[in-house]
Amino acid sequence: MADRPLIDHDYKTPLEYANTPNMDRLAKAGLLGQLDPVAPGVRPGSDVANMALLGYDPAKYYTGRGALEALGAGLNLSPSDVAFRCNFATVDDDFRVEDRRAGRIRKGTSKLAKAVDAIRIDGVPGVKTVFKSTVDHRAVLVLRGEKLSRMVSDVDPKEEGSKIGIAKALDGSEEAKRTAAAVNEFVKRSHEVLREHPLNQDRASEKEKVANIVLTRGAGTIPTLPSFKSMFDLRGTCITGTAMIKGLAMAAGLEVMDVRGATGSIRTDYEAKAKAVIEGSRDKNFILVHVKAPDIAGHDGDFKAKVRTLEEADSLVGHIMDEVDIGLNYFALTSDHATPVGYGTHTGDPVPIVIGGPDVPASRALKLSESTASRGNLGRIRGTDLMPILTDLLGRSRLYGS
Amino acid sequence: MADRPLIDHDYKTPLEYANTPNMDRLAKAGLLGQLDPVAPGVRPGSDVANMALLGYDPAKYYTGRGALEALGAGLNLSPSDVAFRCNFATVDDDFRVEDRRAGRIRKGTSKLAKAVDAIRIDGVPGVKTVFKSTVDHRAVLVLRGEKLSRMVSDVDPKEEGSKIGIAKALDGSEEAKRTAAAVNEFVKRSHEVLREHPLNQDRASEKEKVANIVLTRGAGTIPTLPSFKSMFDLRGTCITGTAMIKGLAMAAGLEVMDVRGATGSIRTDYEAKAKAVIEGSRDKNFILVHVKAPDIAGHDGDFKAKVRTLEEADSLVGHIMDEVDIGLNYFALTSDHATPVGYGTHTGDPVPIVIGGPDVPASRALKLSESTASRGNLGRIRGTDLMPILTDLLGRSRLYGS
Repeated sequence: MADRPLIDHDYKTPLEYANTPNMDRLAKAGLLGQLDPVAPGVRPGSDVANMALLGYDPAKYYTGRGALEALGAGLNLSPSDVAFRCNFATVDDDFRVEDRRAGRIRKGTSKLAKAVDAIRIDGVPGVKTVFKSTVDHRAVLVLRGEKLSRMVSDVDPKEEGSKIGIAKALDGSEEAKRTAAAVNEFVKRSHEVLREHPLNQDRASEKEKVANIVLTRGAGTIPTLPSFKSMFDLRGTCITGTAMIKGLAMAAGLEVMDVRGATGSIRTDYEAKAKAVIEGSRDKNFILVHVKAPDIAGHDGDFKAKVRTLEEADSLVGHIMDEVDIGLNYFALTSDHATPVGYGTHTGDPVPIVIGGPDVPASRALKLSESTASRGNLGRIRGTDLMPILTDLLGRSRLYGS
Repeated sequence: MADRPLIDHDYKTPLEYANTPNMDRLAKAGLLGQLDPVAPGVRPGSDVANMALLGYDPAKYYTGRGALEALGAGLNLSPSDVAFRCNFATVDDDFRVEDRRAGRIRKGTSKLAKAVDAIRIDGVPGVKTVFKSTVDHRAVLVLRGEKLSRMVSDVDPKEEGSKIGIAKALDGSEEAKRTAAAVNEFVKRSHEVLREHPLNQDRASEKEKVANIVLTRGAGTIPTLPSFKSMFDLRGTCITGTAMIKGLAMAAGLEVMDVRGATGSIRTDYEAKAKAVIEGSRDKNFILVHVKAPDIAGHDGDFKAKVRTLEEADSLVGHIMDEVDIGLNYFALTSDHATPVGYGTHTGDPVPIVIGGPDVPASRALKLSESTASRGNLGRIRGTDLMPILTDLLGRSRLYGS
C-alpha cells in the first residue's frame, strides 16, 4: 500500500490518488499512525516484515525464506531440512541466464518437477532431495539429511545475462560446505534432466523459452516459533494466496484457510476473501487477510495498477466492515513494507497503520494516506508492537509485573 | 541548536527567535521530526551522541572520549593505548584548583607541552607517555604500554576551589590500578616540570595565571568501529574544527578535510565550511559538517549569542543549498544534543531533525523549531535511526530478509 509522492501525479501517492472510502472511514474513526516494519530505514523482505507484524522479532526468529515457501507449498519439513525457493529458468550452454522465469512458463511444470524430483544426489552421502512446482515458474527444493546448513549462497544470479552462481558456504562450516556441494550437484543434474525433457523439446519447436535448469535461492530452515496461541491467547486463521505467508502462518500455528480465488497475484478474488473472513470469524478470534496485489503493482512500477489494486482492496475492506461489526471487533490495516512505484522495489519507509474498533480514539483524519498517517494519533510504532497493541485492546494481554 | 522556551523571551527558544530562512525552507519541504540522540531523556556527551548519529550504537561501541580527542589531534594510537583529555590548569601549593584553564592560556602551550612530553614515568614499569597540546588550554595524553585500562577516574575535579582528584581504578582490575598509578605519577611530575618552567615565570611576573599542572579526564581507548563504508556503502568525509569529531570520523574510516577557518569555536568561518562541502561533494557521497558554535553559546548561557550562531549556521545551510542541488541530494540537519541557555549544560531533550531531498514528503511546517518538530511528519526517531533512513533514501541499503 505505502508509496512516496510522485511528481508526475501532483506529488500524490497512489493511496492519496485512490478512491478508498472504506479505508478512509476506518482511518477517521480509529487510531492512525506510522509503522516501521522492522526499524526506521530498515528495508525488509516480506518474510521478515510479516514475521514482525505477527509479533515475532525477526532478529530472534528469522531462519531464511525457503522453508516458509516449502511449508506453504504443502511439503512437510523436519527441523534438519534445508529448503530453497526455486525458479525454472533458461540458460545457454555456458550457464548464462537467458530468462530467469523460462518465459514465465505456466503449463507442464508439474511434469518437469516430477522429473527433477527423481534426481538422486551421489556426491554428498546421506542427502535426499524433494522438489515440487508451485505457481507458474516457481518451485521449492528440500534437502533432507544430517548435517545440513542454511548458510549457503544463492545460485540464482537475480539478473539475466549473468552466469548462474555457484552455491558457497557463507560461514565456512562443514555443514554449509556439504549443503553447497549438494545444491551445486542438484542444479547441474536439473540441467541434465530438463534439457532432454520432451516438454522442453515441444517448447523449443514452438519457439518458447525452454525450462532447462532450476535456480535456487533463499535457503532456510523452519523457524522455531512459540505458538501464536501461547503468545497472544488468540485462535488464528490466515487467508492468503502466497505460499510464504501460508508457511509463516503454519509455523506460528495458525490455521490456513483454503480460499479459491485467493491467488497471490495481481488479480485476486476479493469477494471470495471477504466471504472467507466472515466464515473464519465463526470459530476464530484472529484473522490475517493478506493482499499481495498492490506490492506486485509497485514492483511493476505501475501507478495506475497500484491505484486500482488499492481501490479493489478497499472494496474488500468495505465487504468486511459491512459484515463484521466494527463496534464489537478490532480491525487493523497496514502494509508489510512500502514498494514505491518509482522504485520498483521494497524501501525502508514507515507505512500507514490503522486500528479501528471499540473504545479506540478517533484520528479524525479525512483520508487514509501516508501523509495523514504521519500526523496521526498513534504516533510511530514498530512491526512487533502491533500484536501487543491488538492483544491489549482485546483485553487478552497478560500483566507485566504485578 | 535545540533549547527550551524561555520566560524572558516570550516563551520562545533561540531557534524560534532566530531568523533562519534557509533552515525553514528545508524543514517545510522535507521530513521534520524529533530525534532522541540516544534514547528519550538520556543526556548525552557529544562523543556518544555523534557516534549514534553516525550509526554506531554507543552501548556497543563507546570506549571513552580520550582516544577520539588524541586521534583528532593527530596522534597515532594502538588498541592497547589509553588516552586522556587534558587541561593546563593553575593549582595552589595544596593542589587546590584556582583556574581549570590556567587563565585560558593561549600562547606558548606547545613549549610547555614539549617539557611535559619529556616526562618519564618510573613508578609503573613499561608505561610510556606521549603528550600534545591542541587548542588553547587543551591537550591530550597517551599512556602506552601493556596491561593498561580505560577504567580510571578523572583527576580534573571539574570545578574550581576543589582539590585535584586522585585517579582511581573504577573496576578494581590490576590493569586499572596500574593505569591510575601511572596517571597520578604523570600529574605529579607535570606539576614539578611546569612550576619551574620559564614561561610560567614570565606569566607570573605579568600577573597571569600560571599553567602549573596538567589535569586529566575522559580516559579512552580507540573504539573498534566497522567502517562507515562497510556499514552504509558511502564514501564519507568530515568537516569540523573539533578534535573529538575528527577522531570519531577517523575511527569510522571517514576522510577528515582540513578546512582553514573551521575552528570549533564560537567564531568559525561558515563560508569556508560551505566551500569545503562543495569541494568534498566532488569525490564523496557523504559529508558530515559539524558546527560547534551554538553549543558553546548554550554552555555560556548566552541567549543572544545562541541566536546569532544559529543565524550564522543558517547562512551555511543557505550556501550549501545554493550550490548542492537539493533536488538530487539528501540533506539532514540536526543537533547532537540540546544545550539550553537556561541550563548551561547538555540536557536529554529530543532535538529537531530535518531530512530534505528527492521524493521526501513535505512537512509544510512554516518554520524550523522545537515546537514544529514535535508535530512533524517524521515522528520521533533515535540517533542510530538516522543513517539507516538516509541509506534507504539513497537506495543503498541492503534488504533484510528476502
